[in-house]
Amino acid sequence: MAEAGTRRRARGGGGAARRAERTSVKIEAARYIERNIPNFEILTSEAIEIIEANAEAVLEEVGVNFVSNPAALARWKEAGASVDGERVRIPRGLARKLCATAPARITQHARNPERNVEIGGKTLVCAPVYGPPFVRDTEGGRRYATMADFEKFVKLGYMSKWLHHSGGTVCEPTDVPVNKRHLDMLRAHMIYSDKPFMGSVTEPSRAQDSVDMCGLLFGEQFVQDNTVMTSLININSPMTFDDVMMGALEVYAANNQACIVSPFIVGGAMAPVSVAGTLTQVLAEVLAGVAYSQLVRPGAPVIAGAFVTSIDMNSGAPTFGTPEASQILYGAGQLFRRLGLPFRSGGGLCGSKLPDAQAAYETAHTHNAALMGGVNFMLHACGWLEGGLVSSFEKFVMDADQLGVLHKLAEGVAADANAQALDAIHEVGPGGHYLGCAHTQANFKEAFWRSNLLDYKPFETWADEGARDTNQLASERVATLLSQYQQPAIDPAKREAIDAFVARRKEEMPDAFV
Amino acid sequence: MAEAGTRRRARGGGGAARRAERTSVKIEAARYIERNIPNFEILTSEAIEIIEANAEAVLEEVGVNFVSNPAALARWKEAGASVDGERVRIPRGLARKLCATAPARITQHARNPERNVEIGGKTLVCAPVYGPPFVRDTEGGRRYATMADFEKFVKLGYMSKWLHHSGGTVCEPTDVPVNKRHLDMLRAHMIYSDKPFMGSVTEPSRAQDSVDMCGLLFGEQFVQDNTVMTSLININSPMTFDDVMMGALEVYAANNQACIVSPFIVGGAMAPVSVAGTLTQVLAEVLAGVAYSQLVRPGAPVIAGAFVTSIDMNSGAPTFGTPEASQILYGAGQLFRRLGLPFRSGGGLCGSKLPDAQAAYETAHTHNAALMGGVNFMLHACGWLEGGLVSSFEKFVMDADQLGVLHKLAEGVAADANAQALDAIHEVGPGGHYLGCAHTQANFKEAFWRSNLLDYKPFETWADEGARDTNQLASERVATLLSQYQQPAIDPAKREAIDAFVARRKEEMPDAFV
Repeated sequence: MAEAGTRRRARGGGGAARRAERTSVKIEAARYIERNIPNFEILTSEAIEIIEANAEAVLEEVGVNFVSNPAALARWKEAGASVDGERVRIPRGLARKLCATAPARITQHARNPERNVEIGGKTLVCAPVYGPPFVRDTEGGRRYATMADFEKFVKLGYMSKWLHHSGGTVCEPTDVPVNKRHLDMLRAHMIYSDKPFMGSVTEPSRAQDSVDMCGLLFGEQFVQDNTVMTSLININSPMTFDDVMMGALEVYAANNQACIVSPFIVGGAMAPVSVAGTLTQVLAEVLAGVAYSQLVRPGAPVIAGAFVTSIDMNSGAPTFGTPEASQILYGAGQLFRRLGLPFRSGGGLCGSKLPDAQAAYETAHTHNAALMGGVNFMLHACGWLEGGLVSSFEKFVMDADQLGVLHKLAEGVAADANAQALDAIHEVGPGGHYLGCAHTQANFKEAFWRSNLLDYKPFETWADEGARDTNQLASERVATLLSQYQQPAIDPAKREAIDAFVARRKEEMPDAFV
Repeated sequence: MAEAGTRRRARGGGGAARRAERTSVKIEAARYIERNIPNFEILTSEAIEIIEANAEAVLEEVGVNFVSNPAALARWKEAGASVDGERVRIPRGLARKLCATAPARITQHARNPERNVEIGGKTLVCAPVYGPPFVRDTEGGRRYATMADFEKFVKLGYMSKWLHHSGGTVCEPTDVPVNKRHLDMLRAHMIYSDKPFMGSVTEPSRAQDSVDMCGLLFGEQFVQDNTVMTSLININSPMTFDDVMMGALEVYAANNQACIVSPFIVGGAMAPVSVAGTLTQVLAEVLAGVAYSQLVRPGAPVIAGAFVTSIDMNSGAPTFGTPEASQILYGAGQLFRRLGLPFRSGGGLCGSKLPDAQAAYETAHTHNAALMGGVNFMLHACGWLEGGLVSSFEKFVMDADQLGVLHKLAEGVAADANAQALDAIHEVGPGGHYLGCAHTQANFKEAFWRSNLLDYKPFETWADEGARDTNQLASERVATLLSQYQQPAIDPAKREAIDAFVARRKEEMPDAFV
């Protein structure tokens, strides 16, 4: 795993630059994960064949709805589907054939090229939580999210070594009008981080704003030639593609920007209660959505998503980090790899209201499943709390630290001469110890992954220092990271252009809060 | 997964029995796990060949020490090894050949035959934490363990649906003399639970006491014909087999009782810092230990163990739930399966001082690795805290609840007609919902695993009920389970015989606290 440490580039020259250099904090950033381990495959080949055949049958016999979108219906008709009102029935094999033009791997560019990510094949890119209207921290409790919170999360993401991506709606800034907040969010990702990010999807015009702002940051031609955003297009499961999401997809596909086409499913409500039944529907929906992206622009970059969770049949509440969700993740990975598409799933998902043991158990289940199941893009990798209603500051840094575990696990097991350590075993022999032997001295620095957050101290030291739990350690780490944060350098002309664009677009529209 | 619900058998007859029946609490107990999922294999076939060849070279060239054990040295010489002082050098291939007589699968009998477990092949048997001198709960904090604590843990284990095994030293009862506590511990497992258990290993005579007490519970001939204990024989890594542990192993093997032959390794101290080097040593040690068990009695039941963890090179403290530990677990599983031996590893391992998020992240990593890596016997599956120094009441019930996740995940994905749910997808169609459809109604009860501990409530309800975290929920669950506990019926004659044996053995020895 390559790591690229960088220092903030000082803006001034001479003495000021040297002073800035001396006082700057080194921001470490790990490269995206490249797995050197096999994928875990839970479906037998018989089960795969059944699910694939059933998904084709569903597309042909039941079909999908494209709502309030005559252009989409026309595209489908032209492609050979049967269109009846808003219902599109897709003959067996057609959707899979259309998907073939989608690329198997996407390079998403960041404004700092060292932060570019590869999405597809054996890679895993981790992005933070997306969408919560609330935030929580120890000091302030649970409250509506603001733009100030949003900027803090972007800064924490920038400071998080194992996080590869700045994400999108890391929380909903509810103090900014609904029709303008995408401008402030995009600006924050562009200015406060140099990691890749996501675009707005809540209206086609906002997707266009995202593309235009990227034109200012990267250059217009660069945006047309390269993918600089991955944006989240949810399918209204079961089998409904609404005009807002499809409108955003159309903008992004036309501009060569990547979309995650992703069923959003609470099993038992938006899909059958069984794993195989849910996988059938997920595959049918992804086939239809990805095929549609290729009808808009053949070759448009797209990621096949599966956001599927369980339901508590006692209360009707969605549940997270459950075994059924892991089974679906593993199965979806197998199905999507057979389509040759990058795969989005996973995340630090949990139902807990607090960053406690429940939150961590549930999160770790999904983190592990995402790594082992071949996920290429893990949204919600850190910060998710309370079923996605809350972005938690403490859980953000806890989870972001845990992503280091996945990096190390993904490396697999080396078996070269140094790793074999035969000399050490001979040197130490029965009854000895390895602490001082030559092999240990040569290798100990890289041998074991080490958390920057968790407690490894002897009991007495830990007790003397206040017997802090993980939440308290995380709370302190949030404060430390924010106090150490330094903005990555940006071309002042680009920053001015972005600020001017945001100001102009805000002026052009009256505030709207719906 | 079959489940066997039982009710406590009332002791009296007639009205008293019926009253007891009405007021008795139903104790649910899940059968051991049988995996319907593949094992995760992290080592390439090249890496396996290298490690296997290196382990044979280590046995032949470096050898192992059998300390203060002339009989063992004689056995090894007789078998063809080269013996030099206490050093035993084993020619390439000999240890592996000797291991061939060990059975691939062990049936461990419980006094309630419904609680018998199968150890080997695709099974996973979960047993609680073993060995901590301290206990912790919210009310009493951290303190030395007593026999009263021990009995509480046995009762909690009996009441834990997903726990298959009563374990052994669930905590060290420090208020009982060292040379007598094994008697009280064995008695507690026999009387307060009807699940299978482990025998004493701290001296050969205590192993013999364990065998003798099992004779009283099961019948002497039954014990000779069947395995009724699995006991933990740690290897003093690197490559040292001490006379106490080997003496216990000799007693158990001679009496047809199972031993877990298990290196106990903190990587970087007792083995090389590299995964491949550690696996080489682990394999060499297990080959030597298992081979020795077969020299004592060909066909003796034995489980190949790997208890390996990492070290924090900053502080020298052992660390748990780390990625290197998972890599070693996966690799050991592959190596031991090629030996045709049941595999012990995993556990709810963590370094945290409290049952907080750190504890849960680390535990979940190891729980998942144990399931995916093919472990057959998972000691420490629940209750482990602070690197094994503490048995935590709260973490016991948290982890025991989490074992339900593993049960469900192990079932794999059904693809029969009911699981395919095609009728449901047709019935509901685009834009509908599945909550009321026929397939959901028919399947929802078994569809999703549900925790008996974690919080699934809406935020407002949760807040109204006191905003409890997982630790508080667990604390309440401990109290509830202990208050509901009812002793499983036991033949009064057997109980009297066991009590008399314990009393007599205690009288025969002066107290010793070392």
